[in-house]
Amino acid sequence: MPRLLYGGDYNPEQWPEEVLAEDVELMRLAGVNLATVGVFAWSRLEPAPGRYEFGWLDKVLDRLAGNGISVALATPTASPPPWFGLAHPEALPVDQNGVRLSHGSRDTYCASAPAYREAAVAIATALAGRYRGHPALAMWHVHNEYSSTCHCDLAAEAFRCWLRARYGDLDALNDAWTTAFWSQHYGDWAQIQPPRATRYLPNPAQVLDFRRFTSDELLAAYTAQRDILRAATPGVPVTTNFVLGGWVPVDHARWAREVDLVAIDHYPGDPGIGAEEEAAFAADLARGWARHSPGRPDWLLMETAPNLIYAADRMHTKEPGRMARQSLAAVARGSAGALFFQWRAPRGGAELFHSALVPHAGPDSRVFREAVELGGQLERIAASAEGAVRARAAVAYDEPSAWALQAPGLPSRRLDHLDEARHAHRALWRRGIVADVIGTLGELSAYAMIVLPGHYLMSDDQAGALRSWVAAGGRLVATFLSGVADEYGRIRTGGYPGALRDLLGVRVEEFHPLGPDERAGLCSGSGELWSETMRLAGATAVVRYAGGVLDGRPAVTRHAVGDGAAWYVSTRLPADRYGGLLGAVAAEAGVGPECEGAPPGVEAVRRRVGDRSWLFLLNHTGEDHEVRAAGVELLSGKAVSGAVRIAAGGAAVIQE
Amino acid sequence: MPRLLYGGDYNPEQWPEEVLAEDVELMRLAGVNLATVGVFAWSRLEPAPGRYEFGWLDKVLDRLAGNGISVALATPTASPPPWFGLAHPEALPVDQNGVRLSHGSRDTYCASAPAYREAAVAIATALAGRYRGHPALAMWHVHNEYSSTCHCDLAAEAFRCWLRARYGDLDALNDAWTTAFWSQHYGDWAQIQPPRATRYLPNPAQVLDFRRFTSDELLAAYTAQRDILRAATPGVPVTTNFVLGGWVPVDHARWAREVDLVAIDHYPGDPGIGAEEEAAFAADLARGWARHSPGRPDWLLMETAPNLIYAADRMHTKEPGRMARQSLAAVARGSAGALFFQWRAPRGGAELFHSALVPHAGPDSRVFREAVELGGQLERIAASAEGAVRARAAVAYDEPSAWALQAPGLPSRRLDHLDEARHAHRALWRRGIVADVIGTLGELSAYAMIVLPGHYLMSDDQAGALRSWVAAGGRLVATFLSGVADEYGRIRTGGYPGALRDLLGVRVEEFHPLGPDERAGLCSGSGELWSETMRLAGATAVVRYAGGVLDGRPAVTRHAVGDGAAWYVSTRLPADRYGGLLGAVAAEAGVGPECEGAPPGVEAVRRRVGDRSWLFLLNHTGEDHEVRAAGVELLSGKAVSGAVRIAAGGAAVIQE
Amino acid sequence: MPRLLYGGDYNPEQWPEEVLAEDVELMRLAGVNLATVGVFAWSRLEPAPGRYEFGWLDKVLDRLAGNGISVALATPTASPPPWFGLAHPEALPVDQNGVRLSHGSRDTYCASAPAYREAAVAIATALAGRYRGHPALAMWHVHNEYSSTCHCDLAAEAFRCWLRARYGDLDALNDAWTTAFWSQHYGDWAQIQPPRATRYLPNPAQVLDFRRFTSDELLAAYTAQRDILRAATPGVPVTTNFVLGGWVPVDHARWAREVDLVAIDHYPGDPGIGAEEEAAFAADLARGWARHSPGRPDWLLMETAPNLIYAADRMHTKEPGRMARQSLAAVARGSAGALFFQWRAPRGGAELFHSALVPHAGPDSRVFREAVELGGQLERIAASAEGAVRARAAVAYDEPSAWALQAPGLPSRRLDHLDEARHAHRALWRRGIVADVIGTLGELSAYAMIVLPGHYLMSDDQAGALRSWVAAGGRLVATFLSGVADEYGRIRTGGYPGALRDLLGVRVEEFHPLGPDERAGLCSGSGELWSETMRLAGATAVVRYAGGVLDGRPAVTRHAVGDGAAWYVSTRLPADRYGGLLGAVAAEAGVGPECEGAPPGVEAVRRRVGDRSWLFLLNHTGEDHEVRAAGVELLSGKAVSGAVRIAAGGAAVIQE
Repeated sequence: MPRLLYGGDYNPEQWPEEVLAEDVELMRLAGVNLATVGVFAWSRLEPAPGRYEFGWLDKVLDRLAGNGISVALATPTASPPPWFGLAHPEALPVDQNGVRLSHGSRDTYCASAPAYREAAVAIATALAGRYRGHPALAMWHVHNEYSSTCHCDLAAEAFRCWLRARYGDLDALNDAWTTAFWSQHYGDWAQIQPPRATRYLPNPAQVLDFRRFTSDELLAAYTAQRDILRAATPGVPVTTNFVLGGWVPVDHARWAREVDLVAIDHYPGDPGIGAEEEAAFAADLARGWARHSPGRPDWLLMETAPNLIYAADRMHTKEPGRMARQSLAAVARGSAGALFFQWRAPRGGAELFHSALVPHAGPDSRVFREAVELGGQLERIAASAEGAVRARAAVAYDEPSAWALQAPGLPSRRLDHLDEARHAHRALWRRGIVADVIGTLGELSAYAMIVLPGHYLMSDDQAGALRSWVAAGGRLVATFLSGVADEYGRIRTGGYPGALRDLLGVRVEEFHPLGPDERAGLCSGSGELWSETMRLAGATAVVRYAGGVLDGRPAVTRHAVGDGAAWYVSTRLPADRYGGLLGAVAAEAGVGPECEGAPPGVEAVRRRVGDRSWLFLLNHTGEDHEVRAAGVELLSGKAVSGAVRIAAGGAAVIQE
Repeated sequence: MPRLLYGGDYNPEQWPEEVLAEDVELMRLAGVNLATVGVFAWSRLEPAPGRYEFGWLDKVLDRLAGNGISVALATPTASPPPWFGLAHPEALPVDQNGVRLSHGSRDTYCASAPAYREAAVAIATALAGRYRGHPALAMWHVHNEYSSTCHCDLAAEAFRCWLRARYGDLDALNDAWTTAFWSQHYGDWAQIQPPRATRYLPNPAQVLDFRRFTSDELLAAYTAQRDILRAATPGVPVTTNFVLGGWVPVDHARWAREVDLVAIDHYPGDPGIGAEEEAAFAADLARGWARHSPGRPDWLLMETAPNLIYAADRMHTKEPGRMARQSLAAVARGSAGALFFQWRAPRGGAELFHSALVPHAGPDSRVFREAVELGGQLERIAASAEGAVRARAAVAYDEPSAWALQAPGLPSRRLDHLDEARHAHRALWRRGIVADVIGTLGELSAYAMIVLPGHYLMSDDQAGALRSWVAAGGRLVATFLSGVADEYGRIRTGGYPGALRDLLGVRVEEFHPLGPDERAGLCSGSGELWSETMRLAGATAVVRYAGGVLDGRPAVTRHAVGDGAAWYVSTRLPADRYGGLLGAVAAEAGVGPECEGAPPGVEAVRRRVGDRSWLFLLNHTGEDHEVRAAGVELLSGKAVSGAVRIAAGGAAVIQE
Repeated sequence: MPRLLYGGDYNPEQWPEEVLAEDVELMRLAGVNLATVGVFAWSRLEPAPGRYEFGWLDKVLDRLAGNGISVALATPTASPPPWFGLAHPEALPVDQNGVRLSHGSRDTYCASAPAYREAAVAIATALAGRYRGHPALAMWHVHNEYSSTCHCDLAAEAFRCWLRARYGDLDALNDAWTTAFWSQHYGDWAQIQPPRATRYLPNPAQVLDFRRFTSDELLAAYTAQRDILRAATPGVPVTTNFVLGGWVPVDHARWAREVDLVAIDHYPGDPGIGAEEEAAFAADLARGWARHSPGRPDWLLMETAPNLIYAADRMHTKEPGRMARQSLAAVARGSAGALFFQWRAPRGGAELFHSALVPHAGPDSRVFREAVELGGQLERIAASAEGAVRARAAVAYDEPSAWALQAPGLPSRRLDHLDEARHAHRALWRRGIVADVIGTLGELSAYAMIVLPGHYLMSDDQAGALRSWVAAGGRLVATFLSGVADEYGRIRTGGYPGALRDLLGVRVEEFHPLGPDERAGLCSGSGELWSETMRLAGATAVVRYAGGVLDGRPAVTRHAVGDGAAWYVSTRLPADRYGGLLGAVAAEAGVGPECEGAPPGVEAVRRRVGDRSWLFLLNHTGEDHEVRAAGVELLSGKAVSGAVRIAAGGAAVIQE
């Protein structure tokens, strides 16, 4: 029988033993079926090097199993205990100024340090050995939010090894990094360092490769544990929770291939409706990554905050019902369930005010009552877990491109590939068009329409794949800076956007970045952030600039190629205008909204399997709305024919 | 004969010898009776390790004594000479990034370094031996503004010793610090470090204890000197000048027990009337600390700038007359006099534009003429030095609570206990109600009314003392976050504000922090910064929220307890509204303004002794005002019956 | 035959060999006659210590020479190769926190490290030996933009040596640095450190001397190379390109004596007309420095960006024609030509989007077409290279004063000598008055009028020179803070502005700095930034304050002295008002605009030699303008009699 996962991080080690009984009782009350255990328990599991204390964890797993609650068992390697740094000072991380970090927070390790790798493998091995047959064990949760960078000498040595493997010989590296600039030609591998504090602007190719290296180094730390766990428990899925953000040195599209289930943590940064747009983007991104996962098409919202959004330097408590609606929205977009950080609010520690299903006030509280209600809802819609979301539109989001655009020497400091990807996704979301957010440009045939939002780096292979896909009928929308550089960040000369110039049928000569209050006039309306001097080279102008130095020049173009077409957008169109353009392209591609006639602010997504489908309707507005639908509304259990009424802030799930 | 101290920091070592004669002449002209000498003279007193040069200081003290000017003789230990760091590099301080600081400013020492402690004791011993019988010696001024933190290995070792003494065993520490969070369980004392640069959020309990440790460590450095000086000169009071500010790692309420006279430095940060409010707060705080000082009820304004206020990145020159009025205001609130930093403006050094009684322009200047006038005024009101201020209201300000609210993981980054304490004090000040600002919650019987402004940390003992005091008739006003945590910063679960929940008769479930431009609607007006979901549990609602998610819920409550009552204020009331509430509570407590009918902006405070009293009236406004009073106005020497007229910006001191 | 230099930085080492042929072809097309080669080529010239590879450079120089293009051959010492830091870690620079910087950018060396000095001399010697007779060699370009500071122990030792030489004995240093403040008296030279991270405010005199030391240390690194090059090629001018900015630790007025041709790099920071004002200031500053250069009265714009202005965090592409007009403006003000950074836009590296004459788009581009046009224009006006600009007004800009005003302890954080100098220069520029910007106060007889804009430091010699010059008929305008301190930054006591008090006939007692939105009322209008309490002491009031505490007091004064007069301006007058005052002073001094009747925004400057002159007219406005002129307009080749019409954004050069 299909089920949706429900629960979250559970840290009984923070509480006296008697709290465990109350917790399990409350979990049953709430319908929790999965508890993530042990994420930060290393210092309790291995209080001294090699001395394990599993007794307390045995009790926790036994009691959970005894009450029908499964466990995502974590390896605790994200936070080495205090004894670790004391025993292995060389394995504490070093920042780019050469400051060796101290214990006292979490994530204080260098992923390249043998001592760390060995200690991590040892505790993972011990856990696998101890719990391989435990009835509670349903999933392995390796580490937590891999995201740590280190600039120490061990990392430097590993970086050089990685570069040798990547480039083979120094000439290739010197060429890829353009080391002729500023006299950086390397004559020996030993001369290469991580990007540490230096006098002035760093070499952007070095910085980019160092982030790629860090991603691979962390991945190696992950796979080392994964392989042990897989070997011990072949049937138990192994994953790690991805954390999103421009600072994270992880190329998740590559990582997705190595997990059995893509799992993400999501903490939106906008207290308003923006949180829903951001959550939809994160969900569609996780789903896009899951395309590469060998396991399954769904993904898992592994962590989110039950009752708060942290934004603008303060916590925002969610309105009544919002926790449930957001959880259903994640399931709508393909999540295997709704897990939270965390079960019970801690008394102390760095995150003592982080929200929990059982808050400081205890179970006699609004949030816990809503948690109980949500548990029931997830059970009622459990059948939908079999369905999968099928999108025919896609937005490309390439983490290395995002990293490359963070370099300090670019034409504008306001360039942000993630922002542009979210801008495109938001425009589609607002029109009700469901899109995957994809991290690679291979296997495009599922899509009728793709948006490249400032996809700065582009290899010849990627450009070739896009060309073929367009020629075969695809509709491509590329925005400014897409394809300008190759995969090493080198400009493709001869006119921007080099890799896509011919496909788009344009030639861009000059950039005109805009300030926060500047706009580039268009024949109607205006563009923001960016504008360009462009010449047509096969394309036709769809929109032209008006006024200023660009007066009359093309701003948006269309180029018919084979059975498809390629649009180029040389400025940032405001949301409405952008939505209009993308809607028109979608129409040409035969892609429409998921639910014709759903009013603005009412999110509609379907999960399907075979000829069955579940239509999720999420009303993010402050007013009741009616939407055309037919079937059984699972939350209420009532039949729906013709239309369903969704209360303000409420949701409906129609089994069609 | 009582006298008020008048003078300030005097640094003749910065000048050629002939300036000394002129200085003493000018001091006599101005009526200066106390010069603080030697504060930063270590490198002149001990130009090489163990080699003392006291000749120049002998001359200074002899000449001052010969002219009837007393000396507060400083130990110069706040600024070790350049030779010190060269000889003892391990005694230079280290910041939290591991950067060892260099000589070149002041305060470059680690208080835990034996070399520093020994050098400090040695110079203090030498000074005590040399000047124990000198007729100029009236006071010992140890060090200057103790405030230096160090994160070096010596400090780390001392921190561990301090923790051992505080907690006895590691279990207690692990529990107090909630080290189960993020795998920070300590298995050995040696694993504990100061809060140094780490990957992410630090453990707030570790940070809080490190500040307490630093306070105690500096206190030990102080008492080591004090004991030597007391032994050498039993009759001479020993003190050190307290510096205020959120960054200062000193718990002054604890320190006050160890000084013979509480002395503060005060530099307001607001060029307008806010400076007067801030000065009143600082004075009342010093008076509150002085309650714990074994010596005497008055305190001393040891440093303030004669003619400038530094605010908003620039110096603001005081208006004519303001220096005198501010000095009289300090005396009004219990200061033993008015001392300034500094006597003569220096030619160079880091503070070369700091204001002085003798400015760069020399004695032919407005500021020096005003200094002469002030000297005369202080002499005319000298009798008031016998009187003491008696306040029946109090505002609690707890420095560890202020530190704890500086942690990064709190619900809002805008929480500031000092701000809240000042907000409450200001509301009382504007209504003419004199309040002590108290640093501990013991010995409360003198007060009829106490305000707890976000007193975040609260021990069981403190909560018990408040309960007894209210039951015995006290009127308590507690604002949001008071009592939420115990003394280690652990949340008291079961509903906020844990320690005070029963006394206040409320149960708070959720916080709703507000942004800079947000307001929480109230039945009339609105609150700022913070709001809460609260349930009544014995209390009655005095004010309710209106609009938004909190509509109709209680915002301000009153709970009758025994002979007293306890109010809870769950939002920040704007100044006027807050004043209205506190005024009503005060009326219920039988506490009224010092001077009925004094107009806004005219500060009124009394010093009393036996049946004698002196009413100080400070007109901070730009207009003349009349105030009812009777007695002799000492500044003019005229009899007052019925009313006294105070010129705009002027002052009156009525011997009643 | 006179010629104007035209070209820029050329880096063929960044490209495959075949690009060289295309480059030279394009250079010929554009009329380029000077290529700066080798600036960052160290790692290509000396790929391993002592192993030189000159072959590629031979080819470059041969081909350039063969096509009639001269070379400014650079020593590549601004960017040591990666092998350097690996071989000599002690020669990598250290910042003030003790962080040793890493290779990965440029300028990663310590100028005090013997290893660096030796390596620099070696490569310079090798280049001199190799190319001493090469027909392409027209100039030596030593290093690039000397500007690197180091705080390492080698720098500390060198700093101490420099101080010994400057002060002779420690007493003099202790006195100059006012080390009696905060116990900083030095008992041994070994105790002195560079200004490294310290607890609180540093000693400003130490900081000031460390910048002077750094300037001298870099200068020694320069002269070591220069002497080698001069010896090898006596006839070839040697220079280095000066970079401007408040952070640069170089006293260019001292350096100017050591170069054969003052060369500057100029990158304005304002995308609008402000760029023209800034460029004029930079040009006049270079010309002022050139007065001290033993070589020649002209100077050289060595680097500027062809087609962009970087301002407000983004690149601004220049409007059509602006590159040419700005180039002609530089020539107008005495530049020996127009050189750019750089010839061809790079594919990678830290500045990959920096503008170039051959942009990423290639030669089929607006910017390259404009480059070709500019080449023709420079050829047509080549005769003007013989002329020199002769200014009778001057604005003093003293880099050490600018450094001293960056100290943190000053009355306002908004003080900026460069801003004040630019403010004065701009007021003159807008009135069409040509002024030198002079870096020293010797040899003043050429000027009828001098402005001292906040010339904070002033030695007795400087004050004496000004006094004599005024007495002999000079018109001096000094603004606030001028002469307040001596050359060590010590206040001259007795009333501000000490060194100039008598000459100006005033005595300032107090400062009243103003906030960003504050104004000091004047009898008409208002002043900004600053105001003062001033007493007349011989001068007469020209403008008085109105309102506020300064009501009725003098604000601007005039003091007749001998045959001249000295004005004092105690506040910052807004641009128009300031222009009015300076215009009146200029009229009294007999100094008028270069071209009577030129409309606002049309810049007019003359180069003259003997009785020949060239009038440059630059129309920076968006409208056509007519200006009275007679002669031959060289750009068009047409005769002009009576008036010349200059198109919007265009230029004219009249051979009169």
